Amino acid sequence: MKLVRYGRPGKEKPGLIDDEGKLRDLSGVIDDIGPEQLSDKALRKLSRIEPASLPAVRGNPRMGVPVARVGKFIGIGLNYHEHAREMDLPVPKEPIVFMKAVTSLSGADDPVMLAKGSRKTDWEVELGVVIGTRARHVSVEEAEKHIAGYCVVNDVTEREYQLERGGQWDKGKGCDTYGPVGPWLVTRDEVYRPDRLDLYLEVNGKRMQTGSTEDMIFSVPQIVSYLSRFMTLEPGDVIATGTPPGVGNARKPKRFLKKGDFMRLGIAGLGEQQQDVISFQQY
Amino acid sequence: MKLVRYGRPGKEKPGLIDDEGKLRDLSGVIDDIGPEQLSDKALRKLSRIEPASLPAVRGNPRMGVPVARVGKFIGIGLNYHEHAREMDLPVPKEPIVFMKAVTSLSGADDPVMLAKGSRKTDWEVELGVVIGTRARHVSVEEAEKHIAGYCVVNDVTEREYQLERGGQWDKGKGCDTYGPVGPWLVTRDEVYRPDRLDLYLEVNGKRMQTGSTEDMIFSVPQIVSYLSRFMTLEPGDVIATGTPPGVGNARKPKRFLKKGDFMRLGIAGLGEQQQDVISFQQY
Repeated sequence: MKLVRYGRPGKEKPGLIDDEGKLRDLSGVIDDIGPEQLSDKALRKLSRIEPASLPAVRGNPRMGVPVARVGKFIGIGLNYHEHAREMDLPVPKEPIVFMKAVTSLSGADDPVMLAKGSRKTDWEVELGVVIGTRARHVSVEEAEKHIAGYCVVNDVTEREYQLERGGQWDKGKGCDTYGPVGPWLVTRDEVYRPDRLDLYLEVNGKRMQTGSTEDMIFSVPQIVSYLSRFMTLEPGDVIATGTPPGVGNARKPKRFLKKGDFMRLGIAGLGEQQQDVISFQQY
Repeated sequence: MKLVRYGRPGKEKPGLIDDEGKLRDLSGVIDDIGPEQLSDKALRKLSRIEPASLPAVRGNPRMGVPVARVGKFIGIGLNYHEHAREMDLPVPKEPIVFMKAVTSLSGADDPVMLAKGSRKTDWEVELGVVIGTRARHVSVEEAEKHIAGYCVVNDVTEREYQLERGGQWDKGKGCDTYGPVGPWLVTRDEVYRPDRLDLYLEVNGKRMQTGSTEDMIFSVPQIVSYLSRFMTLEPGDVIATGTPPGVGNARKPKRFLKKGDFMRLGIAGLGEQQQDVISFQQY
């Protein structure tokens, strides 16, 4: 299934995308797509519904983050061989873990608003993993069954805040709107080889990132298992699993996002995001 | 007011501590103490209630985290001059920001469970700040009015995970039970000088940490203002504002927590926490 949450920010309704790509309303069946809807049992129940029996939604509503009430938004750093190489950094011995503020979560096509005074905002297309059932000290073999599904994440990052403002990365990772997720949560039964997915990202129509999850240093099950040894993973937690090469910070010359830029990014089978880059706004 | 959430984990009820130190039940008035109860307006409404009119709670129930549905649990590193000195590190030019996993949140007197295989779990008594109203790019002068109140936090930290396991601190900061908060949320009107609070922490009856928030490098309003420039702070967000000297990692010889240790820590006016250190348990 391709699950979505559509509508105005804070007022999203649950829905699904049928085989013809049509948006169907799930709000007669469930209130929302939150942590309690992500277990295998709850998803199985949803999957028994005949999509054609659900009301079709007219128009082209906004897509919100496909999971409500995300508890943790976790990032993995430097997880592609080619990206480590372009950054001229050694391949990590264990996953590098950071956290993105949950307030950075943003819909797939919502604009990315540059942080105030930002000069080094960068893009990072990533495979997102959504946890379906609690995972605590799970083995690599068991890890997959704790995953509800997959999605596209743009791990937008302010490099100056991340690297030049004292110590830890989280400052540059958690700015408002720096975490577009979606458009869909694709349940894991529909993602046959999460380790063979093609990723891409364009800025103003120019291809910047091209990669495959095949190049990951730590696989999705390894990441889930590893994290579960440091912190319990809960249903609805989202993990951004690292980016392939082609970030702005590694280009020669470096290239960062500015007002008016347009990003298009996606992962085969998981849909596409499109974001306008806008300037900081006080509200 | 001293607000609390008491009862079994996940089943906490709202309450308050009256002037005689008695626990009173607030569940007839509000459902819980969550983000929506933390605005000045909502708190003013609660403060108009005569505590004696509320049912007294018998016995000695467990104290949960005094705020439900914490969105972000943010930590500030190296924020006391004396602590920077003992760690032999330069005074930071701007606040060091990291994130504690919300799954590390734990009641004030709940046991601290050592992470599996932990050899370097350390204590850190800290002043906790609970956000009351949304703060985005607020000035230092405006910051205080976005604070609902204050509490004690033990920013328990696995030093090996923090410093020797690849890159970022979050791994050592976010283990389950490594974030005791409470017992009380003391509303800001009752904390006259948050910059003059005495903090202490003992292990097995021996004083380990003694400090005053007077020694902070960045004041509470400075921290709130600073953070609000990187990420919107939401009601219910908790900020641990750094620890005074005396952590185990800085002692000679180093001293880390082991099974059977007992911590007692507190802040003048904000109450006391007591934690048994227990070994890792699979469940």
